[in-house]
Amino acid sequence: MAPVQFWFEFASTYSYIAALRIEAVAGSRGVPFEWKPFLLGPIFRRQGWNDSPFNLYPARGRYMWRDVERLCRKHGLPFKKPTVFPRNSVLAARVACAGAGQGWLPGFIRGVYEANFAHDRDISDAAVIEEILGTIGQQGARVIERATSAENKERLRRETETAWDLGIFGAPTSVVGAELFWGNDRIDDALDWYSAKGGGPCPSM
Amino acid sequence: MAPVQFWFEFASTYSYIAALRIEAVAGSRGVPFEWKPFLLGPIFRRQGWNDSPFNLYPARGRYMWRDVERLCRKHGLPFKKPTVFPRNSVLAARVACAGAGQGWLPGFIRGVYEANFAHDRDISDAAVIEEILGTIGQQGARVIERATSAENKERLRRETETAWDLGIFGAPTSVVGAELFWGNDRIDDALDWYSAKGGGPCPSM
Repeated sequence: MAPVQFWFEFASTYSYIAALRIEAVAGSRGVPFEWKPFLLGPIFRRQGWNDSPFNLYPARGRYMWRDVERLCRKHGLPFKKPTVFPRNSVLAARVACAGAGQGWLPGFIRGVYEANFAHDRDISDAAVIEEILGTIGQQGARVIERATSAENKERLRRETETAWDLGIFGAPTSVVGAELFWGNDRIDDALDWYSAKGGGPCPSM
Repeated sequence: MAPVQFWFEFASTYSYIAALRIEAVAGSRGVPFEWKPFLLGPIFRRQGWNDSPFNLYPARGRYMWRDVERLCRKHGLPFKKPTVFPRNSVLAARVACAGAGQGWLPGFIRGVYEANFAHDRDISDAAVIEEILGTIGQQGARVIERATSAENKERLRRETETAWDLGIFGAPTSVVGAELFWGNDRIDDALDWYSAKGGGPCPSM
């Protein structure tokens, strides 16, 4: 059975919480998963939104900020409300896309999320991305060069198209076969679904 | 400490699931809660929506129907997709509002939800509401007369205003002091919050 796909967006608060939890949660159950970076912007635009729904609908937004603060405390994650929201995540997503299957990818993902949601840093700034790559032993400039190649840009575009075609409308979304599980709240349900459908523990994990 | 307020809307799918679970979940923890019927329509209109967001945003809607089907199976609840969605819930909400604190209220709530989401019946039809009241030993016509009095109509309007003033933007929402917990997914978190904040088990439950 194909691994669970974990679709995430670096600008998304609930993706932050889910991304920092999923390795432990999936690991403890022995369920394999795949990081799937994508961009919510094009998907929001297809639904008629030119901004995050948390900004367009203030009551929803106020709730989200308080909820995220509570959830971070519950899960022991650092949190500082970003001064810019949502931050432009295109460069970070391109780097994550270019890092598919590489050992440094999980560390990069964690670094970007912490920069955005724990340290209020501008993840659209190439210098910040380069620094994060440096802290995990990568040659930042070289990785960024690869990530911003025409081929890799196109790859991220296609991934975002795939997300839309799968029925994804928000992030994070866990995909198990044809089933979608939207939200940090539904990660356990996604992993349960995987196990129930015969995706046993993965011996390599 | 004031009981947990469970704000629900009879037309809402996730309210259905939550309403049919909350007595058992809160009861097993000894946490007292209060049924708070309200109308989402006026709250959606304040956010610029003239219909359910599940209809306005088809990808979100497709996901919701599948998700609700899965959740009903998980929780052992019957489910049949209603042929009309969202159904007009004004009369049912007025009756629930008039039934505040009465012994028949939980049975009425269950009856309306099952009519809408298990039997695909039209809960806006007074005959259906009267029948539901009859099955729980009430004189339907008399209850409906009280429920549709000017005073009770005004009461439901005020409750919906209160919901908006509390920051409620969707249903179900559990309110614990100043904290909101949106969704069927967050009932456990709401009850945990109540217990952690010193709202111990209620001796009467």
